[in-house]
Amino acid sequence: MADLRQQALDYHEFPVPGKMAVCLTKPAATSMDLALAYSPGVAEPVREIASNPNDAYRYTNKGNTVAVISNGTAILGLGNLGPLASKPVMEGKALLFKHFANIDATDIEVKHRTAEEFINVVEAIADTFGGINLEDIKAPECFEIERELIERCSVPVFHDDQHGTAIVTAAGMLNALEIQGKKIEEAVFVCMGAGAAAIACMSMLVKCGAQRENVYMLDRKGVIHTRRDDLNEYKALFANNTDKRTLQDVIRGADVFLGLSGPDVLSAEDVLLMADNPVIFACSNPDPEIKPELAHDIRKDLIMGTGRSDYPNQVNNVLCFPFIFRGALDVRASRINDEMKLAAVYAIAALAKEPVPESVLKAYPKVSSLSFGPEYVLPKPMDPRLLPRIATAVAQAAIESGVAAVTTLPENYLG
Amino acid sequence: MADLRQQALDYHEFPVPGKMAVCLTKPAATSMDLALAYSPGVAEPVREIASNPNDAYRYTNKGNTVAVISNGTAILGLGNLGPLASKPVMEGKALLFKHFANIDATDIEVKHRTAEEFINVVEAIADTFGGINLEDIKAPECFEIERELIERCSVPVFHDDQHGTAIVTAAGMLNALEIQGKKIEEAVFVCMGAGAAAIACMSMLVKCGAQRENVYMLDRKGVIHTRRDDLNEYKALFANNTDKRTLQDVIRGADVFLGLSGPDVLSAEDVLLMADNPVIFACSNPDPEIKPELAHDIRKDLIMGTGRSDYPNQVNNVLCFPFIFRGALDVRASRINDEMKLAAVYAIAALAKEPVPESVLKAYPKVSSLSFGPEYVLPKPMDPRLLPRIATAVAQAAIESGVAAVTTLPENYLG
Repeated sequence: MADLRQQALDYHEFPVPGKMAVCLTKPAATSMDLALAYSPGVAEPVREIASNPNDAYRYTNKGNTVAVISNGTAILGLGNLGPLASKPVMEGKALLFKHFANIDATDIEVKHRTAEEFINVVEAIADTFGGINLEDIKAPECFEIERELIERCSVPVFHDDQHGTAIVTAAGMLNALEIQGKKIEEAVFVCMGAGAAAIACMSMLVKCGAQRENVYMLDRKGVIHTRRDDLNEYKALFANNTDKRTLQDVIRGADVFLGLSGPDVLSAEDVLLMADNPVIFACSNPDPEIKPELAHDIRKDLIMGTGRSDYPNQVNNVLCFPFIFRGALDVRASRINDEMKLAAVYAIAALAKEPVPESVLKAYPKVSSLSFGPEYVLPKPMDPRLLPRIATAVAQAAIESGVAAVTTLPENYLG
Repeated sequence: MADLRQQALDYHEFPVPGKMAVCLTKPAATSMDLALAYSPGVAEPVREIASNPNDAYRYTNKGNTVAVISNGTAILGLGNLGPLASKPVMEGKALLFKHFANIDATDIEVKHRTAEEFINVVEAIADTFGGINLEDIKAPECFEIERELIERCSVPVFHDDQHGTAIVTAAGMLNALEIQGKKIEEAVFVCMGAGAAAIACMSMLVKCGAQRENVYMLDRKGVIHTRRDDLNEYKALFANNTDKRTLQDVIRGADVFLGLSGPDVLSAEDVLLMADNPVIFACSNPDPEIKPELAHDIRKDLIMGTGRSDYPNQVNNVLCFPFIFRGALDVRASRINDEMKLAAVYAIAALAKEPVPESVLKAYPKVSSLSFGPEYVLPKPMDPRLLPRIATAVAQAAIESGVAAVTTLPENYLG
């Protein structure tokens, strides 16, 4: 049997290159079909949209599309390999959008010199789509890029590496803390890594109740504290007024370790220093900040999550992004705001507490636990309830927070 | 029965909005499928493309994609209605690309203020696709836009309103002149209209042998002549050193009238003034420069074409653009050069001289003549031979003119 590398290359190459195609949803067999689809019939929807732009949602596929856009500056954990090299990832994301939420996603890779140029390009094409999913854009530019695009675009813009990660992390963390008998308002967090995902995760956890003074974020230079003068405005949000400087200083007594950094930065000794009943989410992929076997060996009172599918509690963005966009598109939300993101967090967290249907048990024959507990704080990607639960919660939150153009969901929505 | 307007709107609205969707070409049912399509497997094609950009054609769908891009400044004959209103047309074009040539086309509508901004946006995203089809962009900006993008992009850029029209017009004109016993080198042309399509058509006819001094082009102010000082550089190419100033001045004795202007600008009296055995292509849509019934009433020695499907000799871009891109993509041509365009002209013209297969007869039960002659100077859109004939001719021309990365076609190519 071929190894994973060769299998992955073969999957992408054969029988046709890539993973996606375009298909028609309307007949095109006869001259009459073509007279409706193109000239002269197509002039009619053109005229309607010209006089009422919202009719684009009625006569075109705009309302079911998302552009998956990258500049290739931070591809997976591989770094800045340029826009073209990011194409398989963006096509993969498009595949996930289609498979999990029936959204017609198109990948677009953008060449650019400055963040401003990238923003201008995306703004110029944004109206083509129902939403924009930004992907694999390096920090700190990604913050400015997302903020500007949200401001300038009339459709939702969502940087999944930040918010998808943050939503799923927060959902799992809320459940893990509950199982460990800890209140998020009192928990002490150590966040290793200060990139886009780390800052988004900690911001989301703060929105869920974490106290900023209980958060210790570390970058390559150690603890981010108020006396450092080398912090960008995003890291500065988490500057702690503390004398602690190293991981060893802050891990002592910490309730939570959240790793969004690199392999093996958390040692067995560090884990021993943590508070009783700690939570470790070691999300560096494919090699986590500490190997789960090692961590569990040291601490029996531990709940652990990783980014990997071969361990319990996988923190996987696919639990969120297809469904948050499904909900946003279905009510034509103009943005994906905090209310919608929090609705997704709580919907995901709540789903993990329910018994799983038979189909999920069958999809994961090797998984030991699929009921709420230390080894199951997050639902599984193949859980068919993710779509209706999250999309409905997000759509409702959009309606209630006043950013939706459609203000009632059909009674049998995704039912 | 609903009228065409309502039928066209219903076609676009039901059962789902629009005409196109995305579909998967690879399995995505199991966790293993997803591990190959996305993380961690997708890192492998990323690494390959990062070290060899051409591998994008091997591991992604790039090589089978065309972006259909517009700014909505000249939508059909409807004018400048803005980018969003052009979306149904661009989706329609994408449908034709898929239906006729199995190309996965994506529509992109671009908001912009200046031609330079538009060019920058398209250049920035061009590498995502195997080719760029520009559409419904007004003259004269479209000339600069196309010229700059051809210069800056590594994939073919083709403005269909110019070159698709020009290729099909030239193919039909060569056949019509042959039937009328006229040499293109000696024929006198009157071209009513001086927009993008008109200039492209006459440029192509010059490449096919027409003599510049035999061409009289007219804009709203009359004949374009060398003493006018109001000509842009594109019209200036066709400034004739003549004292003739009006349509009536130039139509006398003309062999060809090519209309790319507006309805009913050619009168019965004008037609009477033309040379023996004239050719009239009245391509204004939906209302031609002269009604075919009227023209045929006046002159029995006439060959006439229009832009409409309900008259003989329809000059329809769909005879060209899906197939010229099919050929260009299949040999990874870096551009669509004159050699490839001329190869398309001659392939289309030649096909009209061959007997049509049974399937074409069945597809056009109401058409009186489907054999080479005054009422059949161009093949029909539903002719399945268009794909292999044109794509092969274009691909070969690309190879021979040195713009193809793939330099041999498979023996059974499109066979």
